[in-house]
Amino acid sequence: MSTESTSLSTDITSRRPVIGVFDSGFGGLTVLRELLQLIPSAHYVYLGDTARLPYGSKSRETIVRYALSSAQFLAAKGADLLVIACNTATALALEDLQVALPIPVVGVVEPGARAARDAAGQQDVRSDDVLVLATSATTQSGAYTRALTALGLNATEKACPLLVPLVEEGWLELPMYKSVALEVLRIYLIEALAQSPGAATLLLGCTHYPLLKPLIETTLKTLRHPMRIIDSANATARAVAELLPRSEEISEGAASCEFYATDSVEKFQRLGSIFLGRELASVQLLDLGG
Amino acid sequence: MSTESTSLSTDITSRRPVIGVFDSGFGGLTVLRELLQLIPSAHYVYLGDTARLPYGSKSRETIVRYALSSAQFLAAKGADLLVIACNTATALALEDLQVALPIPVVGVVEPGARAARDAAGQQDVRSDDVLVLATSATTQSGAYTRALTALGLNATEKACPLLVPLVEEGWLELPMYKSVALEVLRIYLIEALAQSPGAATLLLGCTHYPLLKPLIETTLKTLRHPMRIIDSANATARAVAELLPRSEEISEGAASCEFYATDSVEKFQRLGSIFLGRELASVQLLDLGG
Repeated sequence: MSTESTSLSTDITSRRPVIGVFDSGFGGLTVLRELLQLIPSAHYVYLGDTARLPYGSKSRETIVRYALSSAQFLAAKGADLLVIACNTATALALEDLQVALPIPVVGVVEPGARAARDAAGQQDVRSDDVLVLATSATTQSGAYTRALTALGLNATEKACPLLVPLVEEGWLELPMYKSVALEVLRIYLIEALAQSPGAATLLLGCTHYPLLKPLIETTLKTLRHPMRIIDSANATARAVAELLPRSEEISEGAASCEFYATDSVEKFQRLGSIFLGRELASVQLLDLGG
Repeated sequence: MSTESTSLSTDITSRRPVIGVFDSGFGGLTVLRELLQLIPSAHYVYLGDTARLPYGSKSRETIVRYALSSAQFLAAKGADLLVIACNTATALALEDLQVALPIPVVGVVEPGARAARDAAGQQDVRSDDVLVLATSATTQSGAYTRALTALGLNATEKACPLLVPLVEEGWLELPMYKSVALEVLRIYLIEALAQSPGAATLLLGCTHYPLLKPLIETTLKTLRHPMRIIDSANATARAVAELLPRSEEISEGAASCEFYATDSVEKFQRLGSIFLGRELASVQLLDLGG
């Protein structure tokens, strides 16, 4: 079922659109960051289902149930469009949400794969081999391989379990910490390129990874293996922008955000500001049940 | 409620004891490894609730429910004694299990704390300050601080989120990987010792960490800060041995093990052998429900 099968509300051009963004935790805030840049005239409602993260180790049935309750909360908040800013939930629950909800639902996998295809057609990229870095849960789902193969590309997925804790520890800037992150990236990229030596496109298949992009660029320079880096957060924001009326047709106004988390509001505010790249206005605690 | 309040079955001296060992995953196999060395005459039934790990991000009610279903499975398998080889489950569910089960239940926190107290009384240790390395979930529970404070010691707990993925990636031996693990340990230990500069006892409060012990020893030498390392896996095995009749009174026979996992048997066998330090005989898949 395609994203476009459910239409946007027809009155959307006469008012600011409301965009619901959902993730199991903080990572989806990197998608929100890109949305805020591309579509500054919208109102955003973000829900981090932090009480039930990580989704990666749970069954498909459970993930669909969790994602549905989050999506229904955002629809009830008046969302015109829903973004699943979570790779695991996209891989396992996108189609169920598209069937269940009366509004368009956009995931992160398809836009990332399409951006990789567009990159593979450009002059500086000379290969159909795409390397995907992701969590173990995402690589095990095979969602990126399916999406990339359907677009005629060759996919190699590499699980990188140390990257999420490195980002959540904030080991990205101070030299002592950064040198660890660079060495971990060097090892993962050496291992991944051994499996796919001709890859010229690198797809970041986890919403935590955009924060590592400058370090990944440094590492690829050190390895003398230039690659075009595709960030699924940015690709997803562009897919959302394509669905909306052009911004000049949307009534004016600065972006506004509401934040909800299902666990520790304090932790969400502290960690969340790293992912969003700015302070979070107040975060409200939400109980979605067990 | 103390561990000793429920007595062992009286016929235990006339046959091999059956010891149930339970963890949310693989880490508890480091406790089983110590048990096999100290009590080689027992029969062991190990359950890794891998489908529902990690427990760390779940509510107390959910963890108690999960732990009870695992414990009841092991009791039904004929366990004379149950070991909760998991820090989170010990911190949040030990007392409930001791009330619910008709057999003695031993956790990992209390034995570790007691071993730290014994160490603090020895000649080469000149401080009551104990440093505990653990996961975020365990440090947030405060269980080690409570247990150590009750024994008259000063506890400093340090969350080390990168250590479990380092162990599960197996980045411990080959030089390229080992240098990352050593640098991560150096950073964590520098940060922890800044909070507790006089600590002379280091308590490993996670069942994954015994695999890091040689690297921790190397790091402490580099930092010129000698510490006595207490491994709660070993301390727990000794607490179990104290509860059983002396081994010469137990009928002879080599140790035997049964393994159950609630998710991917193949992964359990592969990763499990790293933790157990030997090949795992066949692992059976178990469905404990949602």
